[in-house]
Amino acid sequence: MSSTFGTLFKVTTFGESHGRGVGVVVDGCPAGVEISLSTIQTQLDRRRPGQSRLTTPRQEGDQVELLSGLENGKTLGTPISMLVRNRNQRPSDYGAMANIPRPSHADYTYRMKYGATSQSGGGRASARETLARVAAGSVAEQILKALFGVEIVAWVSQAGKIKASTIDAAHLSREIVDNEAVRCPDPQAAASMTAAIEKAATEQDSLGGVVSCVCRGVPAGWGEPVFDKLDALLAQAMLSIPAVKGFAIGSGFSCASMSGSEHNDLFVASGSQIGTKTNYSGGVQGGISNGQFINFEVAFKPAPTIGKAQKTVDYEGREVVLEGKGRHDPCVLPRAVSVVEAMAALVLADLALRQAARCQ
Amino acid sequence: MSSTFGTLFKVTTFGESHGRGVGVVVDGCPAGVEISLSTIQTQLDRRRPGQSRLTTPRQEGDQVELLSGLENGKTLGTPISMLVRNRNQRPSDYGAMANIPRPSHADYTYRMKYGATSQSGGGRASARETLARVAAGSVAEQILKALFGVEIVAWVSQAGKIKASTIDAAHLSREIVDNEAVRCPDPQAAASMTAAIEKAATEQDSLGGVVSCVCRGVPAGWGEPVFDKLDALLAQAMLSIPAVKGFAIGSGFSCASMSGSEHNDLFVASGSQIGTKTNYSGGVQGGISNGQFINFEVAFKPAPTIGKAQKTVDYEGREVVLEGKGRHDPCVLPRAVSVVEAMAALVLADLALRQAARCQ
Amino acid sequence: MSSTFGTLFKVTTFGESHGRGVGVVVDGCPAGVEISLSTIQTQLDRRRPGQSRLTTPRQEGDQVELLSGLENGKTLGTPISMLVRNRNQRPSDYGAMANIPRPSHADYTYRMKYGATSQSGGGRASARETLARVAAGSVAEQILKALFGVEIVAWVSQAGKIKASTIDAAHLSREIVDNEAVRCPDPQAAASMTAAIEKAATEQDSLGGVVSCVCRGVPAGWGEPVFDKLDALLAQAMLSIPAVKGFAIGSGFSCASMSGSEHNDLFVASGSQIGTKTNYSGGVQGGISNGQFINFEVAFKPAPTIGKAQKTVDYEGREVVLEGKGRHDPCVLPRAVSVVEAMAALVLADLALRQAARCQ
Amino acid sequence: MSSTFGTLFKVTTFGESHGRGVGVVVDGCPAGVEISLSTIQTQLDRRRPGQSRLTTPRQEGDQVELLSGLENGKTLGTPISMLVRNRNQRPSDYGAMANIPRPSHADYTYRMKYGATSQSGGGRASARETLARVAAGSVAEQILKALFGVEIVAWVSQAGKIKASTIDAAHLSREIVDNEAVRCPDPQAAASMTAAIEKAATEQDSLGGVVSCVCRGVPAGWGEPVFDKLDALLAQAMLSIPAVKGFAIGSGFSCASMSGSEHNDLFVASGSQIGTKTNYSGGVQGGISNGQFINFEVAFKPAPTIGKAQKTVDYEGREVVLEGKGRHDPCVLPRAVSVVEAMAALVLADLALRQAARCQ
Repeated sequence: MSSTFGTLFKVTTFGESHGRGVGVVVDGCPAGVEISLSTIQTQLDRRRPGQSRLTTPRQEGDQVELLSGLENGKTLGTPISMLVRNRNQRPSDYGAMANIPRPSHADYTYRMKYGATSQSGGGRASARETLARVAAGSVAEQILKALFGVEIVAWVSQAGKIKASTIDAAHLSREIVDNEAVRCPDPQAAASMTAAIEKAATEQDSLGGVVSCVCRGVPAGWGEPVFDKLDALLAQAMLSIPAVKGFAIGSGFSCASMSGSEHNDLFVASGSQIGTKTNYSGGVQGGISNGQFINFEVAFKPAPTIGKAQKTVDYEGREVVLEGKGRHDPCVLPRAVSVVEAMAALVLADLALRQAARCQ
Repeated sequence: MSSTFGTLFKVTTFGESHGRGVGVVVDGCPAGVEISLSTIQTQLDRRRPGQSRLTTPRQEGDQVELLSGLENGKTLGTPISMLVRNRNQRPSDYGAMANIPRPSHADYTYRMKYGATSQSGGGRASARETLARVAAGSVAEQILKALFGVEIVAWVSQAGKIKASTIDAAHLSREIVDNEAVRCPDPQAAASMTAAIEKAATEQDSLGGVVSCVCRGVPAGWGEPVFDKLDALLAQAMLSIPAVKGFAIGSGFSCASMSGSEHNDLFVASGSQIGTKTNYSGGVQGGISNGQFINFEVAFKPAPTIGKAQKTVDYEGREVVLEGKGRHDPCVLPRAVSVVEAMAALVLADLALRQAARCQ
Repeated sequence: MSSTFGTLFKVTTFGESHGRGVGVVVDGCPAGVEISLSTIQTQLDRRRPGQSRLTTPRQEGDQVELLSGLENGKTLGTPISMLVRNRNQRPSDYGAMANIPRPSHADYTYRMKYGATSQSGGGRASARETLARVAAGSVAEQILKALFGVEIVAWVSQAGKIKASTIDAAHLSREIVDNEAVRCPDPQAAASMTAAIEKAATEQDSLGGVVSCVCRGVPAGWGEPVFDKLDALLAQAMLSIPAVKGFAIGSGFSCASMSGSEHNDLFVASGSQIGTKTNYSGGVQGGISNGQFINFEVAFKPAPTIGKAQKTVDYEGREVVLEGKGRHDPCVLPRAVSVVEAMAALVLADLALRQAARCQ
Repeated sequence: MSSTFGTLFKVTTFGESHGRGVGVVVDGCPAGVEISLSTIQTQLDRRRPGQSRLTTPRQEGDQVELLSGLENGKTLGTPISMLVRNRNQRPSDYGAMANIPRPSHADYTYRMKYGATSQSGGGRASARETLARVAAGSVAEQILKALFGVEIVAWVSQAGKIKASTIDAAHLSREIVDNEAVRCPDPQAAASMTAAIEKAATEQDSLGGVVSCVCRGVPAGWGEPVFDKLDALLAQAMLSIPAVKGFAIGSGFSCASMSGSEHNDLFVASGSQIGTKTNYSGGVQGGISNGQFINFEVAFKPAPTIGKAQKTVDYEGREVVLEGKGRHDPCVLPRAVSVVEAMAALVLADLALRQAARCQ
C-alpha cells in the first residue's frame, strides 16, 4: 500500500471506512503560517454525505480533531495530524455481500492483492478515505493562499449526459458553486442535472460525470520536469481519487483534432510581462506553470454500488443476482468537488516548496 | 528538476537535445534476466525520426551504447546504464528564435523556472529526452515478459480528425502496428491519416492525435493504493511525455455519460477463476489490476513548432512574426507509440516488484 | 521536517511532547500477519519513564490506542496507525527557560530553523517522539519474527565510565536484560552502573553510555548497496535517535588499529553452508547481511537537561545561570534500549521487503 | 540495489569496477552556478590510485567526461552527468579467486543476494564506485561554496595504531593536508604512519584507520528532524562508503564516559549572535546545524584483500589457502579523504536545498 503523497509537502493518510476512524499526517509545512480549523471543517462538510437529497442519506458528522502541529493557530513546522472518528458504521449492511465481489468495485482486486477477506481491507478503497485528503488539502490551500495568493475552485461540469455551458473561471468562487446542491454553477444545467440524478436515484442506479477545476494565481515556474511535471502530478493525484477514469488539462482530448496553428497559445504583451491569447495549454507548458490559469477536467464513473439487480457471479463462479443494500450516492460528483480541490492543492503546495528550494 | 521515476524499478534520465548525448540509468533490476540490446535498439528505431516521410527528415542514428549492468547478456542486479550520443546537432537552426519564445513550447516556462537563457536548458523539454525512456522501457518490458509474460502494444488510434475503428486488442502485435508507417492498424483509417498528415506537412502545420495502448498478461494484484494506484501512475507516466494533454483508462471520459448499471463490469465464471463480461474498467479496479486487459488512451497535442507564420511577441513584448525553421514532425504520433509502450512498461515493472515485496 | 522513514515498510511519526499526543502510521505491512497489541504495549512500557528510581519520576502511562490497520488481530495490508495521548503535561516546568536555550539541547537550533518560539516546536526533539518509533518498531519486529524468525535484543553495555564485560549474544534475551533495572546483563557492572547513576542523580547531573544490540536470524542477502547498505541505514536510524553521537558495527572504531590479517573474518564450513570464524564484520559485508549475527553499538551523550547550575547566556547574549527544573533522567540508557531495538527492526523490515521484491 | 542518494540534490551512480566505466547523474542542481571541471578532476586525482608508494600501483588515469548539465561552465538546472571510462582492467587477476569468497569482502554476500557468479556484480562493491561519488561531491561542494560559503576538509587522523595529535580545524586546508602523501597534517604522526604502512605493504598486509572531517561555514538551521537529521544522514553517507565500520560526531563514543555538566556546550555571546564555548556537539543539536564547525570521524577497516596467505574455505566449504593477487592498497585511508569530503558535501547540499524550500 502506498499511503504517502508528495516529496517535501508530504501527506500520509490512514484508516478504513469501517474501522475506528480516518486520519492524516501532513509533514513538511512551513512554520508560522496561520491555519484555520473551521476552514478545514468547511471543506469536510462540503465532502460530507447527507448534504442534500442528491447524495447518500448517511449522516457521518465527520468532526475533525487536531492531534499535533499547530500552536496558537499557527504551524510549528512539525507534522500536522488530524483524525476523524468513524461513527455511523453499519457493517451488517455489507455482510450479505461478503462472498460476492461487487462489479466494478475494488472488492475483487483487494482480495487478490492482500488475500484479505475482511471488509475493512477494502475499506481503504472507500470514498471515506478521501476525507483525510480533504483535511490535508485544506491545510495546503491555506498555505498556498497565505504565501502565494493561489486560489482553487472546482465544480461539476457534467452529470450523466448533462453538460454545463462554459463557466467564467476568472470570477468563479466556492460560494457561487455551492449555490446549487449539485455544485454546477450553470443554473439551467444544474436543474437538469438534479432531475437526472433524482431519476437515477429512483431507479436505484447511479450517474457519472465530470468535475472541472481552475487554479488561479500560480506563478510561472512551478513543476519539476521531466517526471514530476505539474500536469503529470495532477494526473496522478486525480486518478488516485476513487472512481476517476480520465484526466485532461487545457484542451484535453480535443487537442487531438486540432492543428498546431489552431492550438498554439500565441504570446501577447501583458503589462511588463507577457501572457497568452488563448489557454489551450491549461496554464502548463513543458510541465511547468506559465502564469495563466491552470484548468483541468476529471471524469468520474458512475458509482458501482447500486440497488438495481445485477446478474453476476460470486468468488466461486456461481451465478447470483446482486442488489446493493448500503446507502450509496446516486451521483458522487457534488461531493467530489472538494476532493478534487484538495488533491490539486497537495500537488501545488509540494511544487511550490520544491521551486523555493531552487535558491534563486 | 525531477529526472528519476519509480520506487524499486528506478529510472534516471539525463542529457539535453543539443548537448553530448542522452542517457539513462535503470536501477533495481532483478539479477539474472536476459536482456537483448538489439531489442532495445529496435524500440529506439521505432522512436527515431526519419523513418518515413510522415516524420521529421532528421537522421539521428541513435545507436545505444551499454555502459554497465549486463554481463554475458544477463542483468547483474546492478544499475544498467545506456548512452546515446547526439550527432546531428544543428543549433544554428534555433539561433534566430533565441529571443522569441515559441508559442505553446517550453521555452518560456524553462526561462521562468531556471533563469537559463540557453537552448540546452530547454533541451530537456525536447522529445529527444524520451529516447532515454524508450531504452529503459525496453529493459522493463523484457523483464516483464521473462518473469510474468506481460505484453504491451500501442498504436495510433487518432491522427487529426481521423479516428481508427475498434481494434482487436487481443491479437494486436507490433508487427501489425508497423505495417503502416503511421502505426495505425486500421488500414483504411491509416490511409486517411497519412493523407491528412501529408497535407499538414505541406501547409507547414502539425496535427495532434491519440495513442491507444493495451497491456496483456498482467496478473490481478498489481498497483499500490491509495496514491500509487496502477492507473494513477500510468496517468503520471503518460502526462510526463512531452505534448500529452489527456489520459483515459477503460471507458475514460465516456464513463461520465453512463449509468452504473451500464458501466459495471459484471463478473462471469472463467475457468477456475472469475473474469468480467465487459471491460469498462480498463483492467483496473480500486487502483489494482484485475487480470483483464489494461487499456488506456493518451491525447497528444499538435507539435507546437511549425513553419507556418505565427503572430506572437518576443520576451520584451514586441510583436513579431515567427516561422519555425527547425526540422520538425508534422505529426509526432507514429513515433510516440514506442514512448507510450516504454512508460507503461516502467510503471508495470515497478508495481510488479512492489507486489513481489509483499511476501505473500 | 522529515517524519517518514523507510522505502517499502514506511513509518511516519507525529506529535509534540507537550501537545495532544504522539502517534505513528506504519504503511507497507504485509497482510495477514498476527500483531499483538500487548507486545507493543510491553515495549512501550520498557521505554516508559518512571520504571525505576534510575529514570525520571514522570508517570506517563502511555497506553497505545490502535486506530487502523488490524482486524481480528491480523494486518490488513493497510496502514496501521497508533496514538498515545499525552497526559502528564506540565508546560509550566519549562516556562522559565523560554528565553534561555538549554545548552546542548535542540532549543536553539529549532528556533533558528523554524523560527518558532514555542515549546511545542522543540517538542519534536523530545525523547517522547521515540514512543512512536517503539510502537512501530514492535510491529516491524513481530512481522520479522513471524515471517523470517529474526530476533533483536539490545542492552546497556556502558553507563558513564562503567563498561559491561563481553555478553553471550547468542543466548541473550530481553528477560535477562530486564533482570536489572539498568538493563545491563552483566550483574557486577549493573551494580556499579546503578551506583554511578544514583550518584549523578544526587548531583543533579546526568550520565552518557552505550547501548549494544544483536540481531539474530537475519538471512544472508539483506541490504541494498550502494547507498542503502544495511549498516548505512542502521547508522542513519541510530543517529536519528535523540542524544546519539556515535555508531559502530562489528569491530567499530577498533578496526582502525588492526591489520587486515587480524581483522578478516575467515570462512569456515558450517553444515551445508559456510560461515565465518570471527565476526569483526558484525554480520554485514559490502552492506549486505552474511547470515552471521548483526551486532552494533550506539553511543548516547549524557542528557543535556540537568538540575546543576550552568553559566550560559540567553538568546540576547546576556549571561545567566540556568538550573533545569523539569523531571529528567539522570541516565536515559535503560529506556533507550527499546528505542534501539525498534529502529533496528524498522531497518530490517524494510530491507526484508526490498529483498523479497527481487523476485528471486 | 539502491544507487540513488538525496531528496532534492539527488545523485545516482552506476558502473562496475571491471565494466566499461563508472559514472554519475547529479539531479537537482540550482541553475546558473559556475562549475569547474578541473576542480572535479583534482578531487578525482586525490582519490586516484598510484599517487604515491603508499597506495596501489594501478595507474587508472580516471579522466572525467562531462555528458550533460553544463553550458558555458554553468549549471543549466538539468542533470549533470559524468562518465569515467575504465581503462586498466585486469580481470585475470581475479580469475583464480572465482570459487573462493575473499574473507571480509563482499564476494559472498553479493552472490547470496544477487545469485550472480560474475566478478562484475561484485564490482559495485569495489572502491572504484566511489569515484562517481567524488565527481558528484565536487559539484555539490562547488555549489555549497558559491551559494553559502561552506568549506569541507578531511584528513587522516589515524592509520593503524598511529594517531595524529589534535589538528587546528579552523585553519586546515586541503593544501596542508596534501603536504604529506599519507594526508595527515601532523608531520610527526605522518612519518610514523608512512613507516607503518610501508611495513604493512612489505608484509603483504593492510592497515585500517580513521578519517576526520570538518565542515566550516554551515549556517544554523540545516537538517531535517526527525529521521533526516544532519548527523543521521552523515552517518548513512559515511557507512555507505566501502570499508567503513564506525561514525562519530563531535564527542562521539567518548560522550559515553562524560557527565552532562562536562559535556554540555555552554552558550556564550558571540557578536550579535550566540555561539558555544565548547563543541562536543560537533555542530549539530537535535539533528540541526547550530552554526559551529561540524566535525566527525569515520573508521575504516583494513582492506580485506591482502597478499598474505589466509586459511579459508571455498563456496563448497573446502579448505583452501588464499593469497590475494590483485594490486591493492596497503592502506586506503589517504585516498578515502576525498570520498569522505564528497559524501559530506552531498548531504549538506541536499539539506541546504531542503532548508531553502522552507520559504522563510
